[in-house]
Amino acid sequence: MTGTNTDRAIRTISRCREIAARTEVPGETTRLFLTPSMHNVHSLLRSWMEAAGMTVHVDAIGNLCGFWAGLSADSPRLLIGSHLDTVPNAGAFDGILGVVLGVAIVEELRGKHLPFAIEVIGFSEEEGVRFSKPFLGSLAAIGKVDAETLACTDRDGISVGQAIRNFGLDPVQLPRAVVSNHTFAYLEIHIEQGPVLESENASLGIVEALVGQTRMQLVFTGQANHAGTTPMHLRHDAMAAAAEWIVAVERYASSHDDLVATVGKLEAFPGAGNVIAGKVTASLDVRHADDTVRHAAVLAMTKEAESAATRHRTQVTANTQLDQPAVPLDPALTTILQNAAAQAGFPSRRMTSGAGHDAMILAPVIPSAMLFLRSPGGLSHHPDESVLPHDVEAALVTVMEFLTQLGDDRGKLEDGHA
Amino acid sequence: MTGTNTDRAIRTISRCREIAARTEVPGETTRLFLTPSMHNVHSLLRSWMEAAGMTVHVDAIGNLCGFWAGLSADSPRLLIGSHLDTVPNAGAFDGILGVVLGVAIVEELRGKHLPFAIEVIGFSEEEGVRFSKPFLGSLAAIGKVDAETLACTDRDGISVGQAIRNFGLDPVQLPRAVVSNHTFAYLEIHIEQGPVLESENASLGIVEALVGQTRMQLVFTGQANHAGTTPMHLRHDAMAAAAEWIVAVERYASSHDDLVATVGKLEAFPGAGNVIAGKVTASLDVRHADDTVRHAAVLAMTKEAESAATRHRTQVTANTQLDQPAVPLDPALTTILQNAAAQAGFPSRRMTSGAGHDAMILAPVIPSAMLFLRSPGGLSHHPDESVLPHDVEAALVTVMEFLTQLGDDRGKLEDGHA
Repeated sequence: MTGTNTDRAIRTISRCREIAARTEVPGETTRLFLTPSMHNVHSLLRSWMEAAGMTVHVDAIGNLCGFWAGLSADSPRLLIGSHLDTVPNAGAFDGILGVVLGVAIVEELRGKHLPFAIEVIGFSEEEGVRFSKPFLGSLAAIGKVDAETLACTDRDGISVGQAIRNFGLDPVQLPRAVVSNHTFAYLEIHIEQGPVLESENASLGIVEALVGQTRMQLVFTGQANHAGTTPMHLRHDAMAAAAEWIVAVERYASSHDDLVATVGKLEAFPGAGNVIAGKVTASLDVRHADDTVRHAAVLAMTKEAESAATRHRTQVTANTQLDQPAVPLDPALTTILQNAAAQAGFPSRRMTSGAGHDAMILAPVIPSAMLFLRSPGGLSHHPDESVLPHDVEAALVTVMEFLTQLGDDRGKLEDGHA
Repeated sequence: MTGTNTDRAIRTISRCREIAARTEVPGETTRLFLTPSMHNVHSLLRSWMEAAGMTVHVDAIGNLCGFWAGLSADSPRLLIGSHLDTVPNAGAFDGILGVVLGVAIVEELRGKHLPFAIEVIGFSEEEGVRFSKPFLGSLAAIGKVDAETLACTDRDGISVGQAIRNFGLDPVQLPRAVVSNHTFAYLEIHIEQGPVLESENASLGIVEALVGQTRMQLVFTGQANHAGTTPMHLRHDAMAAAAEWIVAVERYASSHDDLVATVGKLEAFPGAGNVIAGKVTASLDVRHADDTVRHAAVLAMTKEAESAATRHRTQVTANTQLDQPAVPLDPALTTILQNAAAQAGFPSRRMTSGAGHDAMILAPVIPSAMLFLRSPGGLSHHPDESVLPHDVEAALVTVMEFLTQLGDDRGKLEDGHA
């Protein structure tokens, strides 16, 4: 392998920053699905892709696809990508780094063709900000954008279908956005957006699974009363009940490996310092890579809520708003990726992804693997989001090695998925 | 004593309801300090007072005073009263019951003069709603309405001084609102506004002291982070810290007699279900009749906040917004009042008042006693606030007996306060 130096890592980072300047809001990076600034992003990426010899097209959902042929016309196809859109006031690396690295990888081939083709894909939508529907890009790639989705409207009343037309694309062509049935694997490279790798001084994480998630709302109902005239033993204090429950949630999650549980939103009513809370609403977010573990946790936490409510002479209701299964990634591909990292000299950590990614959509259909890069400060969805050049280089070298091993292991891989 | 029947209790209740119809907001009882509806209240009360043979005047702060002479022109003076103003959308008894009962007591004398005069006083302001300054009526009665208070403005920019003039009164006359130096005692009759008497099936409470109060705001500061990608052991979760502290506050207060502590207001930032709270602000309200006990509690709760914050890798600051000492009532008067209740056949309970009352302002200057009536459902500051005729009768009979014993004990009482 040639070019083991950090210049290409620094170039990759500076390309991400160049794209970050393509924004709807001057002075910050905000780039929602199919907004005019996305045309500029397409132009930039297209220029780099074409310079690397790739054939480029934009599909009907706005995914940008750069194709680098394999050794033969019917070579199987490896998809490498991530997303192009951002959250409001975003950083420069969430999503886009995986696409820019895809281009850099093809550049590193320096004209060489492999036993498989590579398609670098920039999904046009993952964050779900504009239409409150995430993953529109990857859903289109597996043929799951239906009429109902096309009818969804943004805050200006524009539908997904109309947004596609406004961007100069044709929703009738959506079936052609489905990835080729020659596609044998998907690789997503993404920043971790969490503190785990940094805390272990590791550059790279090998994602085994994307966690499943439960979202609930709990409502503790007691009785609002005077904070001065109501003795402790005659209270029906919804806040005291909720607090005891939050402590139990934290204790349960902390004592179960890789489980996370969060109460991030809480409102007390009437919400005055001198009035005992008569009602408290609280959110619960529970995630784990094993759905059995997650469901057991949710059950235990719901029971803890009932016990805490009873002890405080209050009542509680728990309403499940989301119960999304975990998505395992492909074990064989994942092992190849980890071996590639080791071979490249970058010890990596197997881990789960606590956040959702396009790989979550593709994995049930296409064998998928995911490579995480350390997030300095664990920071993401923030203008100060960053990556270290050393880690970008580690990812690049690892993926180049992955391509090599993938060529060698193709047969093995196909046996595994026969 | 004549007239031991419930007709007078029912008449007292119906008079309170008649006054409750004097309101600024049709359909509910809302009567703030010196609003036009207060003129109607004055008219009604004046008509009942004058029919009972009392001499009536309104002082410069708007207190309505009805005078019933004693046996001689220089007889000492007993003040009986409570307040005329209400909270928004109030009940019919908070405050006004003590004034209407004062009138009923003079009526029960049926022309008889005692060794002391009685002045029934309706304080024009206690709740503090209009100017965010409570107790304006009783403060004027002890000469504590100063220029700074007169300059306070309401939400329409009208000052206290201007409000007085708009009502047809003259702030220059405020020094004449100070109660006569012949005044030897103050008795306030008030609904409990809490559940204690009801929970013990008692009609009457004898208030020994009005509790001291600490109000604080605590700010727990951690670090907002992704609920999915941040493992439990790397979190700086301000909500988890605050919850642990609230549990400790509740536990401490519950294990110390007559102590109450409340966290009624809590806000989490950013306040999203999928984001670990980076900041939580919480109120703390601590009350006890013994300031030493209260200060020890506040210290312990502040330490608990620091421990909880440290355990969750967060920080906490605690800001004291109010540290108001307890106000003991007069022991000799209080004993006479309790004996009177027993003599009248209504076993009473000694208790503290967790809420503030005009007696809190007068007690440091004039020996004061307070009689509580059971609050059905513990309900107050609510349209459904009520009193039982049986309890109103108990209060009336008790106070008539109190007057008798007070006549007998005047010498003793004066020795006690020499």
